[in-house]
Amino acid sequence: MQFFKVKTVEETYALIDEMIPSIQDVEVRSLEEALHYILAEPVAATENVPGFDRSTVDGYAVKAKDTYGSSESMPAFLTVIGEVKMGEGVRHHIGSSEAVYVPTGGMLPPDSDSVIMIEHCEDMDGLLNIYKQVAPGENIIRAGEDIRNGDLLLPEGTKLRPQELGALASLGVTHVRVYRKLKVGYLSSGDEIVPYQTKTLSTGQIRDVNYLAILGLASEWGVEVLYGGIVKDDISQFQQKARELYDQVDCLILSGGSSVGVKDYTIEVIEGLGEPGVFVHGISIKPGKPTILALADGKPVIGLPGHPASAMIIFKLFGERIVRKLQGEKIAKKPDRIFARMTKNIPSSPGRSDYIRVRLFELNGEWWAEPIIGKSGLITTLVKSDGIVEIASEKEGILQGENVPVIPSR
Amino acid sequence: MQFFKVKTVEETYALIDEMIPSIQDVEVRSLEEALHYILAEPVAATENVPGFDRSTVDGYAVKAKDTYGSSESMPAFLTVIGEVKMGEGVRHHIGSSEAVYVPTGGMLPPDSDSVIMIEHCEDMDGLLNIYKQVAPGENIIRAGEDIRNGDLLLPEGTKLRPQELGALASLGVTHVRVYRKLKVGYLSSGDEIVPYQTKTLSTGQIRDVNYLAILGLASEWGVEVLYGGIVKDDISQFQQKARELYDQVDCLILSGGSSVGVKDYTIEVIEGLGEPGVFVHGISIKPGKPTILALADGKPVIGLPGHPASAMIIFKLFGERIVRKLQGEKIAKKPDRIFARMTKNIPSSPGRSDYIRVRLFELNGEWWAEPIIGKSGLITTLVKSDGIVEIASEKEGILQGENVPVIPSR
Repeated sequence: MQFFKVKTVEETYALIDEMIPSIQDVEVRSLEEALHYILAEPVAATENVPGFDRSTVDGYAVKAKDTYGSSESMPAFLTVIGEVKMGEGVRHHIGSSEAVYVPTGGMLPPDSDSVIMIEHCEDMDGLLNIYKQVAPGENIIRAGEDIRNGDLLLPEGTKLRPQELGALASLGVTHVRVYRKLKVGYLSSGDEIVPYQTKTLSTGQIRDVNYLAILGLASEWGVEVLYGGIVKDDISQFQQKARELYDQVDCLILSGGSSVGVKDYTIEVIEGLGEPGVFVHGISIKPGKPTILALADGKPVIGLPGHPASAMIIFKLFGERIVRKLQGEKIAKKPDRIFARMTKNIPSSPGRSDYIRVRLFELNGEWWAEPIIGKSGLITTLVKSDGIVEIASEKEGILQGENVPVIPSR
Repeated sequence: MQFFKVKTVEETYALIDEMIPSIQDVEVRSLEEALHYILAEPVAATENVPGFDRSTVDGYAVKAKDTYGSSESMPAFLTVIGEVKMGEGVRHHIGSSEAVYVPTGGMLPPDSDSVIMIEHCEDMDGLLNIYKQVAPGENIIRAGEDIRNGDLLLPEGTKLRPQELGALASLGVTHVRVYRKLKVGYLSSGDEIVPYQTKTLSTGQIRDVNYLAILGLASEWGVEVLYGGIVKDDISQFQQKARELYDQVDCLILSGGSSVGVKDYTIEVIEGLGEPGVFVHGISIKPGKPTILALADGKPVIGLPGHPASAMIIFKLFGERIVRKLQGEKIAKKPDRIFARMTKNIPSSPGRSDYIRVRLFELNGEWWAEPIIGKSGLITTLVKSDGIVEIASEKEGILQGENVPVIPSR
């Protein structure tokens, strides 16, 4: 076994970005199924959107120059020669001093270049009084102004949000090639761990709480979780169960018990799964120092600390990054951190990143972060929290009122 | 039909909060299924968590007073009388000047009151050299310190995040009573609207893009969507289809076409569904002014504007609030707005709320919001955006550098 120096959070992120590959398995999904999937190929537009020049208001299509100089006191007068109906082609060419009624979204008649809103004119039995001038292009969207035929609409690696689905639908795209969803395996270990369904605990037993929290986080990221159960403090059983689960999943999570045996075994079990093995063994972070990250023949393996609160924070910080990299996400649009002002001074050791659970409240158009009191192992500190403040490793702490990054919980 | 004054955004939110009821249908879910469901009853703790005094470190359980005054140069000496194994009860009472090895999470032996970390002592064949003093309570968690038997853990109306599932599991709770998931119906209308799967559009036709975007947003909120298809510009067909869909869902969404007929019909169709009917008809907002909100015999009805981009923004702003209220959510923990500095001056009309699509970027520990160029009807403006900046109705605009609330997209 190699000797490992504890890594900083920043080094850990860099190693994840460097080490974790993306899966290459592609599948076809309908747009109805494709929410939050990652595009496996770029999508270029095959037509213009909109397909024709459209009005953006209810009004009259005109030649702009026929309205120049018109005002409330000096209206211009045009002749209404017809009406555009929604969903139909347009019959009327517009000649000089002519106008055609167009509803919002309606097709612009040929030779018109702008639309005057109904609020700024008056139709007196076919004679249109114009009380305001419009400029060419006013109140219209040109064909291809939203999406131009041939342009790249979405690059490979894009996460499909509702608006991306809408944009794809506007092109008549019905199916997309995406990376398949990931499957993550979760295995608990330790003689003291019992299924969370256990009604009455014997002395010294602990329910397998981490499983539920990890399952919840992974579900929020769209990842399926396969539960491998609980292994006792026995290395050959641990190795066998880990291998069985590893073979069925894209990423294996081991939640470490605290008994001396399991602690010693975990690294050995992980190293036995494949090459290159462990690349992070211990992170300079509070909570969650005894974290293990490995890559075994292309599949990430995560050894989480046993404390439920630490396990959740570590999985949120590093598990999410690993999952996003693994599922092929390249264009992350969402800011995953907000900023808030700290209500209190918080000391921290330089060289170590601290993650402080906080309650957030808004005051005068700013978020404020109030630290949750309680030891770091308590899961209720997470229940009471709205997010986690990050104190970067180079900092010696946070001063009251200082603006700090917060990872909000959903 | 009543006469309606256009409402401000703030008035609209207040009306939603006042008018929209919560569904009362309760179902039982296992913890594995319960993520993001809303608790339909309070959950009180039925046992202590942890169930016993535990060590938070690897070390030796001691009586703190036996370590007082000890240091590197003046160690105290204790006798190691045994070891605590994970998952087992403890046999050893600790007497004066005695110590017992305890792993992290292990049960504390009776009569010990603290744990000294292994880093601060040395076991020389059963003689423990103590190089640091500890205080009573140090490095331990007391029984019930996380959750105390009888205390209220989660109130009714709580959204179950991963940490709430973990806390419930720690009590051995396996099933929870929650409000059932909502079903929302979506019906498009307008002669120009065709199914989004339509390969080639005839002149003037528009694909039903809104359906995909609305389906995506509703899915993000955990709501099922039933698609009612597209009704042509015919009031009796519209009434019949709306009624059919209304009968199957908890909330009905009508996406209005722009033809004159449909515009006139929509309000009539909604008013015909039930009492008290329309309570918002027009919002002083850009984009999305022609929005209709109604309550028909206990079910909300939303009339969305026809422009895809407007429809999405309106559904995000008001649809999400309606859905959360309807599904019984009372304790919303997550901040749904972040704050960012605007890169440009943005004018706005007082009395109207403006929603500006922005790209977000981080600079020196702050988010900055760069407005997306493009007319408000363009769906690509949403594809390019990371969120929407809100300019409240009382403001006359935003100055460059001003801190503004942003609704981030997921």
